Amino acid sequence: MKRAAIIGGGVIGGGWAARFLLNGWDVAVYDPDPEAARKISAVLDGARRALPMLYDKALPAEGQLTFCGSLEAAVEGAAWVQESVPERLALKHSTLKLLQDVATQDAIIGSSTSGFTPSQLQDGAVRPGQIVVTHPFNPVYLIPLVELVGNAANDDALLRRAEDILNSLGMFPLRVRAEIDAHIADRLLEAVWREALWLVSDGIATTEEIDNAIRYGFGLRWAQMGLFETYRIAGGEAGMAHFMEQFGPALAWPWTKLMDVPEFTPELVALIADQSDQQSGALDVRALERLRDDNLVALMRALKQRDAAAGALLNAHEATLKMPEPSVPLMSVTRTIPVDWTDYNGHMNEGRYGQVFSDAADAVMAQIGADADYIASGLSYFTVETTIKYLTECHAGDGIRVTSRITLADGKKLGLWHEMTRAEDGTVLATCDQFLLHVSLESRASCPPAVAVQDRLSALAKQHGTTE
Amino acid sequence: MKRAAIIGGGVIGGGWAARFLLNGWDVAVYDPDPEAARKISAVLDGARRALPMLYDKALPAEGQLTFCGSLEAAVEGAAWVQESVPERLALKHSTLKLLQDVATQDAIIGSSTSGFTPSQLQDGAVRPGQIVVTHPFNPVYLIPLVELVGNAANDDALLRRAEDILNSLGMFPLRVRAEIDAHIADRLLEAVWREALWLVSDGIATTEEIDNAIRYGFGLRWAQMGLFETYRIAGGEAGMAHFMEQFGPALAWPWTKLMDVPEFTPELVALIADQSDQQSGALDVRALERLRDDNLVALMRALKQRDAAAGALLNAHEATLKMPEPSVPLMSVTRTIPVDWTDYNGHMNEGRYGQVFSDAADAVMAQIGADADYIASGLSYFTVETTIKYLTECHAGDGIRVTSRITLADGKKLGLWHEMTRAEDGTVLATCDQFLLHVSLESRASCPPAVAVQDRLSALAKQHGTTE
Repeated sequence: MKRAAIIGGGVIGGGWAARFLLNGWDVAVYDPDPEAARKISAVLDGARRALPMLYDKALPAEGQLTFCGSLEAAVEGAAWVQESVPERLALKHSTLKLLQDVATQDAIIGSSTSGFTPSQLQDGAVRPGQIVVTHPFNPVYLIPLVELVGNAANDDALLRRAEDILNSLGMFPLRVRAEIDAHIADRLLEAVWREALWLVSDGIATTEEIDNAIRYGFGLRWAQMGLFETYRIAGGEAGMAHFMEQFGPALAWPWTKLMDVPEFTPELVALIADQSDQQSGALDVRALERLRDDNLVALMRALKQRDAAAGALLNAHEATLKMPEPSVPLMSVTRTIPVDWTDYNGHMNEGRYGQVFSDAADAVMAQIGADADYIASGLSYFTVETTIKYLTECHAGDGIRVTSRITLADGKKLGLWHEMTRAEDGTVLATCDQFLLHVSLESRASCPPAVAVQDRLSALAKQHGTTE
Repeated sequence: MKRAAIIGGGVIGGGWAARFLLNGWDVAVYDPDPEAARKISAVLDGARRALPMLYDKALPAEGQLTFCGSLEAAVEGAAWVQESVPERLALKHSTLKLLQDVATQDAIIGSSTSGFTPSQLQDGAVRPGQIVVTHPFNPVYLIPLVELVGNAANDDALLRRAEDILNSLGMFPLRVRAEIDAHIADRLLEAVWREALWLVSDGIATTEEIDNAIRYGFGLRWAQMGLFETYRIAGGEAGMAHFMEQFGPALAWPWTKLMDVPEFTPELVALIADQSDQQSGALDVRALERLRDDNLVALMRALKQRDAAAGALLNAHEATLKMPEPSVPLMSVTRTIPVDWTDYNGHMNEGRYGQVFSDAADAVMAQIGADADYIASGLSYFTVETTIKYLTECHAGDGIRVTSRITLADGKKLGLWHEMTRAEDGTVLATCDQFLLHVSLESRASCPPAVAVQDRLSALAKQHGTTE
């Protein structure tokens, strides 16, 4: 079993713990804060609710979580050590020194620092090459970006190993090729933050007006394409150079106050805190977190269905998740009901049952070789008739399983029977009787399946005791 | 019929034309560019594909589009005049002067300017009070944000009328209370743009690396909450003031190069254009536009299902769309198939049929008074069994209609029959037989409906010729 050490809990350390645990790693946490276990549990609750909803398969079985009384105990045997202590260089140095005294030489030590460079962190270290920056974004269990920054002291093999591990956690390691303060994303964020502080400080806009300008405007664009690709499109047929020439002159105009830095006074803090209370104070932080997580799940699932941006990362990660071995009857779906599947009655909407059973049929298709390549060859199965019986309600967050049987396998005709149960206690939630026809995608007319598919289908039908 | 004049075509003018047309306004366009009609048609094609997909009801019948040979002809009779000519103040002034010579006194003249203030635009105008800034964001037919900027010269009544009209187009007018160069959103964008130019210019990151830092990271956060609400959550239980104190010191650190302005050289333009070609050059601008639009539709629909951020705006707009009058059989669904409903076979996924028929059942519920208030009172109908026959394939962008009949209305038992047809030619696409039970939401057990619902159900069943 792979083991990760999380040094420093809090929101960021807790998020890292969740990423590793829910992807099947054992996790050992060290944080001297007596409240650490409670704080990490709160983050984990959020992660356990949200992360599995992103996938249309089950994640691996959760690893073991241990809280350790000492840094040494936490680091022992860890392949990955993640340091997330407060942003003070002297503290980072003393922590890294202790870590390197205990960690195995081939463990990766990643720092969550948002501002320091690898060179600053490695300064005075016994094995500088072991230390890299792995800077994540909140909530760490949902946002895929991690800035991975190394330098000449780091072996390329170590950086590649770090990339592989981060990918296996469903994250996107962005290799930052140069060492600068605040890496890449936080430079952009800092620019927006400074400009936004000016707008509030000058009384031009409130925190809520600024948030609305973002989430109803460019925030939507940036969830799927970034800045440059968006502007490339705005340049139209004339392209990127044209766009830049059109808007280049604005660089010389006073369109930002960033030549100047807003003074960080208690008055400015109070002004912003008051406006923020007015904007969001009706909900406590736990409620806001849950809203944020549910919205992120819904957005990322929308991109997943499009196989675009963060959704393409999800699909790539999901493809590495193992399906259970073929069984009789076939275990065709194991998943969690996501939050975007529920309706005004508070339970899973009837339309989504059709989706689950459609996924179950896809799993059967995969078993008989009627897969993506087969479809690309111009052949597929189309569903002709479906009867669903809704037996017991189910809700967002419920784990569900579907087992499937072949009930008819007669040339171009295929009959399937699916049973959907609650993973927790085996309660039958719904059943589905499906009738499909094999078709040519060119003529859109029915035709017999290819011999290889027919053979695998017959074998499966035999296992299921179906009379052909 | 309401009429809008669009002065200046191009991507922005075309987007405005689409917003008005697809919300039922007649639109007259004036642009001296001989290519204007072709360019606007391309924008309109994109809008006609994407905008209707955002809604679960049909939009109003499209208005009439006219290309006019003169500015005077375009403006005549227009209640809204939108100016989107190039960003040069002298040209804006001469255009606005011509517009005011022709426009009726109570027409609203909105300028799409991203940089100029209302005072700059109104300077020398005969009726300054008629001119406001209405600054939209690309693609105008999908992104809801419009910055609405007025000043003391504008009547509050005119600004409120402008807000109402923009709301009726499904947009979000953000009232900017102060006049500053570049309003609010473009100040934030300009800050990011300048920082990003530095990162590329200094060789720290490529355009693609920056876009990845955005779309895999904070772009996801900003599509649903903005900057301040996101940071409020990051502050955790300690709140916004704590967050600011934690990150306040960074303001004094060199975390941005914005004290300085990047020099706009041909070399910088070439560097960025080359990197952009490498990043996105495999697809032409039309293909990128379609990807962007389809992604935006999927993201906004995900938020719509959550009733959050831009999705809450969509729901509010949709609630103003009229359903057809009750008919026999009942017209229960009229909508467009959105892009997130299709599967690897290229057609609407079977699971989504269940969703359409679930919506059809909801429309029947609304007719018999089993609506949101009724559910809040603790009573509802649950679907027990559904049989769907899939007769003809359908695809993203197809308009569809469902008609519904009561087939059984016997105490707590309710039977519905739905027929789904293609709007264009009436081809029957699918049928659905549904059996529902009336339940108490408290006991989750079946019980008879309330008398009022029973009465309306009986009346509807009688119209449908159903024997009770």
